[in-house]
Amino acid sequence: MAAPGENLKINADRLWDSLMEMAKIGPGVAGGNNRQTLTDEDGEGRKLFQKWCEEAGLEMGVDEMGTMFATRAGTDPDALPVYVGSHLDTQPTGGKYDGVLGVLGGLEIIRSMNDLGIKTKHPIVVTNWTNEEGTRFAPAMLASGVFAGVHERDWAYERTDAEGKRFGDELERIGWKGDEPVGQRKMKAFFELHIEQGPILEDELVDIGVVTHGQGLWWLQVTLTGKESHTGSTPMPKRRNAGLGMARVTELVHEVAMDHQPNAVGAIGHVEVYPNSRNVIPGKTVFTVDIRSPDEKTLNRMRARIEAGIETICDALDIKFEIEPVGHFAPVTFDEGCVKAIRDAAERLGYSHRDIVSGAGHDACWINKVAPTAMVMCPCVDGLSHNEAEEITKEWAQGGADVLFHAVVETAEIVE
Amino acid sequence: MAAPGENLKINADRLWDSLMEMAKIGPGVAGGNNRQTLTDEDGEGRKLFQKWCEEAGLEMGVDEMGTMFATRAGTDPDALPVYVGSHLDTQPTGGKYDGVLGVLGGLEIIRSMNDLGIKTKHPIVVTNWTNEEGTRFAPAMLASGVFAGVHERDWAYERTDAEGKRFGDELERIGWKGDEPVGQRKMKAFFELHIEQGPILEDELVDIGVVTHGQGLWWLQVTLTGKESHTGSTPMPKRRNAGLGMARVTELVHEVAMDHQPNAVGAIGHVEVYPNSRNVIPGKTVFTVDIRSPDEKTLNRMRARIEAGIETICDALDIKFEIEPVGHFAPVTFDEGCVKAIRDAAERLGYSHRDIVSGAGHDACWINKVAPTAMVMCPCVDGLSHNEAEEITKEWAQGGADVLFHAVVETAEIVE
Ligand SMILES: NC(=O)NCCC(=O)O
Ligand SMILES: NC(=O)NCCC(=O)O
Repeated sequence: MAAPGENLKINADRLWDSLMEMAKIGPGVAGGNNRQTLTDEDGEGRKLFQKWCEEAGLEMGVDEMGTMFATRAGTDPDALPVYVGSHLDTQPTGGKYDGVLGVLGGLEIIRSMNDLGIKTKHPIVVTNWTNEEGTRFAPAMLASGVFAGVHERDWAYERTDAEGKRFGDELERIGWKGDEPVGQRKMKAFFELHIEQGPILEDELVDIGVVTHGQGLWWLQVTLTGKESHTGSTPMPKRRNAGLGMARVTELVHEVAMDHQPNAVGAIGHVEVYPNSRNVIPGKTVFTVDIRSPDEKTLNRMRARIEAGIETICDALDIKFEIEPVGHFAPVTFDEGCVKAIRDAAERLGYSHRDIVSGAGHDACWINKVAPTAMVMCPCVDGLSHNEAEEITKEWAQGGADVLFHAVVETAEIVE
Repeated sequence: MAAPGENLKINADRLWDSLMEMAKIGPGVAGGNNRQTLTDEDGEGRKLFQKWCEEAGLEMGVDEMGTMFATRAGTDPDALPVYVGSHLDTQPTGGKYDGVLGVLGGLEIIRSMNDLGIKTKHPIVVTNWTNEEGTRFAPAMLASGVFAGVHERDWAYERTDAEGKRFGDELERIGWKGDEPVGQRKMKAFFELHIEQGPILEDELVDIGVVTHGQGLWWLQVTLTGKESHTGSTPMPKRRNAGLGMARVTELVHEVAMDHQPNAVGAIGHVEVYPNSRNVIPGKTVFTVDIRSPDEKTLNRMRARIEAGIETICDALDIKFEIEPVGHFAPVTFDEGCVKAIRDAAERLGYSHRDIVSGAGHDACWINKVAPTAMVMCPCVDGLSHNEAEEITKEWAQGGADVLFHAVVETAEIVE
């Protein structure tokens, strides 16, 4: 099996045009996107992707979690397919590239192969995983998690959004609940291209991140229950202020993350305050702690310290607490062979590269449990992501997609 | 002018029945009420009050702020009316008595006078002030503030709720924008009955609070602007976390209030976090600081310390801030003569009483600027208010309304 030639490249203009075309669906308010999972906009984005897949001669399959699998046949009917992809859903104020680059980068590989008449022994399947972001329905990476056997399909269907709408109902509503049982597909390998979402590659002027590991995560949903009462006439010693409790937990999470530098991060991004009235002491707050580390022991130590700290904080304020884990993944070590395929591709193509740990969770992190998996990253401006101002250059997209192209077609085995 | 006889009492059962009847409109989720200002429920509550006023032979006037004035004529056409009342709007998770007791207590006085055939020289006007609570549209005590010349009517019309709806439009929508220019009425006096909303009277087993003063208040709406970014892949030193900033301001407000015990309170009840997604570091937070003190110097010192503290907090986190005052009243000293009328009435009726400072703001605090004003308070269970579980006993309501009755008819001068 020969490695693809170093002159083999994707069509960066076409990839870029498709990125811009997709970004028209579910536009944000500041140049980015709001195409949250299982919204009408998600449905529209899927339709456009399906149309493009059909035009590229791919055959679409949809599983019961709504994940889309677009297959380009191989020459050997018995050969396991090579999978490539990411997600088309976005944050409420998300960017144009987070996830989308990985899906449309996969499609661009197929288009380039069609242009060049390249055949492979193994089929290649471009994948759009449902609900990677986890904003509307926690946890993140939901469909890939069900695929990898981490979650039950029916448990996933029961996840609810802030309005109490069920994942299963919304999937049906937008018309993308497929018939295919989840997780039955066997993969030769899975490759995911993604923007770094952090500042390292740009800071070091490196074209390609060869992702060797991924950070682990805990999402802890905390409910604090104090007592609603009047901000003016309730004496300070009589207060049971669930908002003050939340403030102290926010500081604690920050402190715990700072104590484990540079191997940890922590923040609270999601907050609900009841009844949320200027002259009512909050009687209840609900919020999600997000802590991460590439080291499992560190991650669990952070969790333990935060849980103990919450107890101390609540005792002092005479408020009750509940802590419910609503998301978790352990730190990930990607497949050596797949990682090497990416590193070799970058080397062969002459792109500068470095090994890197993914700060974010990705569908690849779950799929790594059931198939040899690796990821390739490209830089993004100022390391900014989960922000409408998220930006990359066409050259960065080209580099990432070229490396993906080489890793995929090499693994799928070009038929000369 | 003779003082009313000590056997002169209101009908507590009838008052209680009316309180329970009104509480059926805009029921809450936990036994209380959600009848926020200028909602359909507010409109329904107003209709019921109007019907009761008509049945009691009162003549209704409505001003351009939607405030309702129900007049019982006096014997002297030239005599200035005595006003009595409070508000029918509630918090989103409010109680059945906050405000309502003062309006229906006023109506009960009229009903009792009708029963007993009592005539007064001065007319008596039962009043329902629009938007006392200030939850939906800040500031609180909006219509009484316009009446007293503190705010402009057109400025009040421009206040918007969380959905951007204008006060003026909503007032028109529910059909309660009257023709009467605001603030033209001259008053001999204004009396307001209200539940204490604090624990002092109940703790000390005292029936009646003779309100001599009211605390001053500042509402400071703070906007912190950091940078939305990924909770997983943004290194700790690169974060500009507006949520962490809000947490630190919350702690600061608490600390400043604690440093001025027992002459100050402070809390943050209202909070918005953007984009409010579990895996996005908050890029923007908007929240309202509520600080109060009966001493103006203390109040302003607290404000200055909080504003300086916000600057320090924001500098350390590399975030920007804006501070906009959205509510303010100075500490109030009620009219000596009106206060004495209330103290004398409690004494005459044999109710235990004490002088008290109102922790909350009330319409009476504004009306005090344009007419001799005072308030009477009755206890509430556990000092709890701005909570659906707010509770009083029928006996407490009786005591408060009896004292109000005596103060009002004495001031309106019974015609023998
Ligand atoms: N890549 C990405 O933003 N994934 C969302 C899940 C996470 O929060 O890491
Ligand atoms: N009495 C009362 O709850 N008034 C609302 C205005 C305030 O917050 O003090």
